Amino acid sequence: MSGRSSRKRSAILDAATELFLTREYAGASMEDIASAAAVSKQTVYKHFSDKETLFREVALGSVGRVVGPFQAKVAATAEANDVPAALHELARSYIDAVMSPMLLRRRQLVLREAGRFPDLAHTYHETGPRRTIDALSSAFARLAERRELVIKDPRVAAAQFAFLIIGEPLDTAMFRGVGNRRTRRELHALADAGVDVFLGAYRNPRTRPAL
Amino acid sequence: MSGRSSRKRSAILDAATELFLTREYAGASMEDIASAAAVSKQTVYKHFSDKETLFREVALGSVGRVVGPFQAKVAATAEANDVPAALHELARSYIDAVMSPMLLRRRQLVLREAGRFPDLAHTYHETGPRRTIDALSSAFARLAERRELVIKDPRVAAAQFAFLIIGEPLDTAMFRGVGNRRTRRELHALADAGVDVFLGAYRNPRTRPAL
Repeated sequence: MSGRSSRKRSAILDAATELFLTREYAGASMEDIASAAAVSKQTVYKHFSDKETLFREVALGSVGRVVGPFQAKVAATAEANDVPAALHELARSYIDAVMSPMLLRRRQLVLREAGRFPDLAHTYHETGPRRTIDALSSAFARLAERRELVIKDPRVAAAQFAFLIIGEPLDTAMFRGVGNRRTRRELHALADAGVDVFLGAYRNPRTRPAL
Repeated sequence: MSGRSSRKRSAILDAATELFLTREYAGASMEDIASAAAVSKQTVYKHFSDKETLFREVALGSVGRVVGPFQAKVAATAEANDVPAALHELARSYIDAVMSPMLLRRRQLVLREAGRFPDLAHTYHETGPRRTIDALSSAFARLAERRELVIKDPRVAAAQFAFLIIGEPLDTAMFRGVGNRRTRRELHALADAGVDVFLGAYRNPRTRPAL
C-alpha cells in the first residue's frame, strides 16, 4: 500500500471508531464515515467492502499489533537476570499499552456492540487478554523453574499479575470514558505497586537479598 | 407495594434487562417489554413512567442493594479476630455477588449503553465498584492501624484486593457472556488464591504464626 493510501486507511479507521462509539454501529453509515475521514465514499469501499468488514477491522485490527510485541517482552522477562526490575518494566509497558486511548476506545466499542457481534467480542478476548495471560503464564512457569518465583499455578498467577496492574484503571475507563484516565505517572505508580504485591507473594525468599 | 404488584414489577425488570441486552435500548419498546413480562402495557407504565425511567431502574436498581450488605461485611472484617479467615470469607462472598448472573447482566447493559447514557455509567461506577473500593480502603486502613496488615496506601491496596479477586472472571464474562462463567467452586478457588497473594504481600510478618 502506498503511503497516501495507508494514511487514508488509518483516517477511515479512526473516523469509524469515533462514529461507531458516538452513534452506535447501527447509526453510523459508510457515508458518514467517509465524510468524517475526509475521503470519498468510493475510497472507503476500496479499503473495506462493507460496514461489517470495516467494523471488524476497527474492533480487531489493533489488538494483535499490540499483543505481538508485548509477548516478546514477556518472553524476555522470563530469562532476565534481574527479575524484579524486569517485571517492573514489563508492568509499565503493559499498562501503557492497555491504557492507550486508541486501544481503550476499541475495547469500549467491542464491549458496546457485543450484543450484535458476540463472535467478535469472543475473538477480541481470545486475541487480546487471553493471549496476554497465556504469555505471562509461560513466563511465570519458566521463572518458577528458575526458582526465581515460587508458583503453584502459573495460569492463576498470570491473571493475578494482569489484573493487579491494569484491573482498576481499565475498569474505571470503561465506565467513565477514555478522557478521564489517569496520567502516565499515576499509571506507572499503580503498575509498580502491583508488581510489589506480586513479588511479595511469589518471590522465592531464598533469592531475596538479605536486608 | 402488594406482593402481586412487587412480583409484577420484578417481572418487568427481568424482561426489560433481557430485551435491552438482546435488542439494544433503541430496539426494545415498552410494548415488547410488557408482552415479555406477561403484563399489560398499562401495568408497565404504572410502575415506570417511561422507557428511560425503566432503563435507569434496570441499570442502577440492583447495584445498591448488593453493595449495601457487602459494606457491612467489609466493616466486620476490619474488626475480625482471625483476619486471614475473615478476608477469605469476604472474598468468597464478594465474588459470589459480583458474578451473580443478575448483576453481570445489568453491568453488561450499563457498559453497552454507556454511549447513550454516559451519566448512568458514571453513577453505576460510583454506586458499585467505587463504593466497594471505598469500603475496602477503610477496612484496610483499620487493619493497618491494628497492625494486622502493613499497608502504605489503603486505597491502592483496596483496588488490588478487588481486582485480584474479581478481575479476570469479570472481564471474561463481559466479553464471553454470562452463560460461560465459571462454577461457584472455581470462583471460590480464585477468590482464595487472590487472598493468599494479598496476605503474602500485606500481612504483618510479626502476626504470622511461626512455622
